[in-house]
Amino acid sequence: MNFSMIRYTIGWLLVMEGAFFLVPLIAAIAYGESRSILAFALLALLSTLIGVLISYRKPRDKKLYQREGLVICALSWVVLSLVGALPFVITGVTGSYIDALFETVSGFTTTGSTIFSEVESLPRAILLWRSFTHWIGGMGVLVFMLAILPLGGGQSMHIMRAESPGPSVSKLVPKVRQTAAILYSIYFAMTVLQLLTLLIVGKESFFDALNISFATAGTGGFGFRNDSMLSFSSTTQIITTVFMLLFSVNFSSYYLLLRGRLKDAFNTELRVFLAFVAVMIGLITLNVLGAAQAFDGWRDTLRHVAFTVASLVSSTGFSTVDFNLWPELSRFLLVLLMLVGACAGSTGGGLKMSRIILLIKGMLREFKMLLHPRQVKKLQMDGHTIDHEVVRTANAYIVTYAAIVIASMTVLAIEGLDLASNFTATVATLNNIGPGLNLVGPTQNFGFLSVPSKIMLIFNMLAGRLELFPLLVLLSPSTYKRS
Amino acid sequence: MNFSMIRYTIGWLLVMEGAFFLVPLIAAIAYGESRSILAFALLALLSTLIGVLISYRKPRDKKLYQREGLVICALSWVVLSLVGALPFVITGVTGSYIDALFETVSGFTTTGSTIFSEVESLPRAILLWRSFTHWIGGMGVLVFMLAILPLGGGQSMHIMRAESPGPSVSKLVPKVRQTAAILYSIYFAMTVLQLLTLLIVGKESFFDALNISFATAGTGGFGFRNDSMLSFSSTTQIITTVFMLLFSVNFSSYYLLLRGRLKDAFNTELRVFLAFVAVMIGLITLNVLGAAQAFDGWRDTLRHVAFTVASLVSSTGFSTVDFNLWPELSRFLLVLLMLVGACAGSTGGGLKMSRIILLIKGMLREFKMLLHPRQVKKLQMDGHTIDHEVVRTANAYIVTYAAIVIASMTVLAIEGLDLASNFTATVATLNNIGPGLNLVGPTQNFGFLSVPSKIMLIFNMLAGRLELFPLLVLLSPSTYKRS
Repeated sequence: MNFSMIRYTIGWLLVMEGAFFLVPLIAAIAYGESRSILAFALLALLSTLIGVLISYRKPRDKKLYQREGLVICALSWVVLSLVGALPFVITGVTGSYIDALFETVSGFTTTGSTIFSEVESLPRAILLWRSFTHWIGGMGVLVFMLAILPLGGGQSMHIMRAESPGPSVSKLVPKVRQTAAILYSIYFAMTVLQLLTLLIVGKESFFDALNISFATAGTGGFGFRNDSMLSFSSTTQIITTVFMLLFSVNFSSYYLLLRGRLKDAFNTELRVFLAFVAVMIGLITLNVLGAAQAFDGWRDTLRHVAFTVASLVSSTGFSTVDFNLWPELSRFLLVLLMLVGACAGSTGGGLKMSRIILLIKGMLREFKMLLHPRQVKKLQMDGHTIDHEVVRTANAYIVTYAAIVIASMTVLAIEGLDLASNFTATVATLNNIGPGLNLVGPTQNFGFLSVPSKIMLIFNMLAGRLELFPLLVLLSPSTYKRS
Repeated sequence: MNFSMIRYTIGWLLVMEGAFFLVPLIAAIAYGESRSILAFALLALLSTLIGVLISYRKPRDKKLYQREGLVICALSWVVLSLVGALPFVITGVTGSYIDALFETVSGFTTTGSTIFSEVESLPRAILLWRSFTHWIGGMGVLVFMLAILPLGGGQSMHIMRAESPGPSVSKLVPKVRQTAAILYSIYFAMTVLQLLTLLIVGKESFFDALNISFATAGTGGFGFRNDSMLSFSSTTQIITTVFMLLFSVNFSSYYLLLRGRLKDAFNTELRVFLAFVAVMIGLITLNVLGAAQAFDGWRDTLRHVAFTVASLVSSTGFSTVDFNLWPELSRFLLVLLMLVGACAGSTGGGLKMSRIILLIKGMLREFKMLLHPRQVKKLQMDGHTIDHEVVRTANAYIVTYAAIVIASMTVLAIEGLDLASNFTATVATLNNIGPGLNLVGPTQNFGFLSVPSKIMLIFNMLAGRLELFPLLVLLSPSTYKRS
């Protein structure tokens, strides 16, 4: 284990977090929130200082293997969250450090589950920090570091692979650093595009537009009004719906689009994803209309359903309506949307559409081989043969996912949560969505839970954002044994 | 596709079903239930006659491939159920044929979910037929056919493999026919043992003891009293608890025990299974005791919990208590027991303990390979290397299982079932358990469901009993294409 390389990276991470604190600091100054000014200024300074001290001595050996990549990735996210929770504590808006940590992890992992029962009384700098954590966490802070820092040699791919969502990572261009730069540029440009659309078309204030854009881009979903997105205009809701879906798409598709490779951009995953979203919006709209809900006709219903579907499938978690009150069929389909999640390589969470496609293809192959045992078939997607290893890892992923679900549900069941609340709280955190159903529905919050449950859900959120394995590697004693 | 071989087997199956009808016929005569006498006599005669006619002409080509094995297996179970439902219709105890079919499939698949709101008014011949279907279905009717009929050549292994539960089938002795005979002998002997224990130690009447033994041996669980097993003596409840667990064990373990190979008999699966059951009984007893239930102290609690755990993990589904009222942690652990199920090669249902062990081993291997990418590790169990194919099939099995769960939950959600009822109704049928929670809890029944839901659950029960693939092969058009 290359410990000095781990130290070096964590140091740089703290320097960066120091810089991140400047964004809410500006807001604090602009709105004259003195306690927030103090908190963010202090933290910006300290974080940078400690970071510089830690990373001052350059490591001699810059070699990174897969193991180091996983540990660096997981540890970075833990440190980022531990430090990122401090503004909540210093400004005194949370009762305990564990609540502050829950909120911060929920932010960075783009989950959007909150422990606050109401948010409108919070300082604006804190609200912006919450939304900004979504934006930082959405694309991944290490990808950003890879883009701007001269970290290591070719082995930095291991870090990128550990942090990136989806069953396999494709380098857009041969160099990792360049790939990271392209991805972050697309991310940045799309965020600005949403910001401008909200300002010009949606006529929102700069503060509102910025918060919505940060939370949408990262598919996070922290509300900064007590009713989440209900009180915003229908124009703003529609803009947000569109951008939630746009941020659920694999970012390499945008790169391919820019390069004019239309056919490669609309790959199997994207086509299946769009079809899935369309079918779900159709089914749920019909179901909700049939249940005689209090919406103003089908257009109103369609708008709310489309918003909710986009919000849950992208794992954003914004709401314009209490979908917990919808009929059982819709509630079940919403749970399905939560489970499936977005496309790989997007900022969205969930199991990822391409992983689902892989698993279904594996199942169908097995089925064909029952009928024709002598034909050995290779799995294919978009004309490429899928590596056997990718399929095997996807299978191990599902089993690990199930194991974490069972562990989490056991912890929450001790608290006496009913099955639906328990399951959806687990999925909503593990898939980085935000709200679930029943006790953790869109009009509720996670503040009432006990400390063990909160710790379990914090683990879920981190495990979900890092796609399970890095966090397990970090926590496993065998990682640190000499091989 | 060797259609004449399929015809031949189905013919023999009908002859056998004709013989099966003689058991309830004897009960009908003994209790002087005239309508039942008429029904079972008529059906015994007709089934045998039609069977003889169909199987009269021997097929020239007796070759069977995997495909035919799967089709024969699935079709046999469908035909067996379609015919087995007729006594319910002729005696007029069910309102519709679909209800009769639901009850019969629930019987043969050893599920034990009933559509009757009360059973004590049913003719005794019908009650015995219900329990007897469990016994027939428990070990599998085709295994029985293999044991007594000169069916095919060495290829009859394909039929046995299709019908037997668990990820891999081991022939105890080189000849399939002999293996089948050994398994059925053990099954028969253990059923007689339970019958005698219930008669002598439990002091039950012959009718009661026979019904309980049939339903326990097949791990079926149709109650023939309105309160399932509550009103039986605690001695009888304890005997049933022990036998439910005994019938959850891989039958080859008993064969190995008889041969004195103690160490081989207590293989990994059995040891893990026993530990799992013990831990679950301990946890749930503590939880239920802590919740101040109305039991008479810890001994009473332990007895009820042990009975419930044995009933659900073996997928029998008998109840001595309304476990739907237990605290949420216990409810969740019961759902877990339902999902895991019994050992492979037993009469019990569920995902099977050995499949779970396989999946966990696969997950751990993946995890190790993340740390040491250059070491390729083979999976091992009980000193043997596990075939790569077995692991792959286990993975495909889980994905198929999940797909059926989603399909079933969608159908049930249309009816407006809440998430917990919906999920447990699906698992209770797919894993051949019987009762679930909430609306389908142990004091409820499945009679209230709509026809589409009942058809879906009938599919679940058959798919679960045949371990998913045979039924899917039967229903897939590509099966009948020339290759």
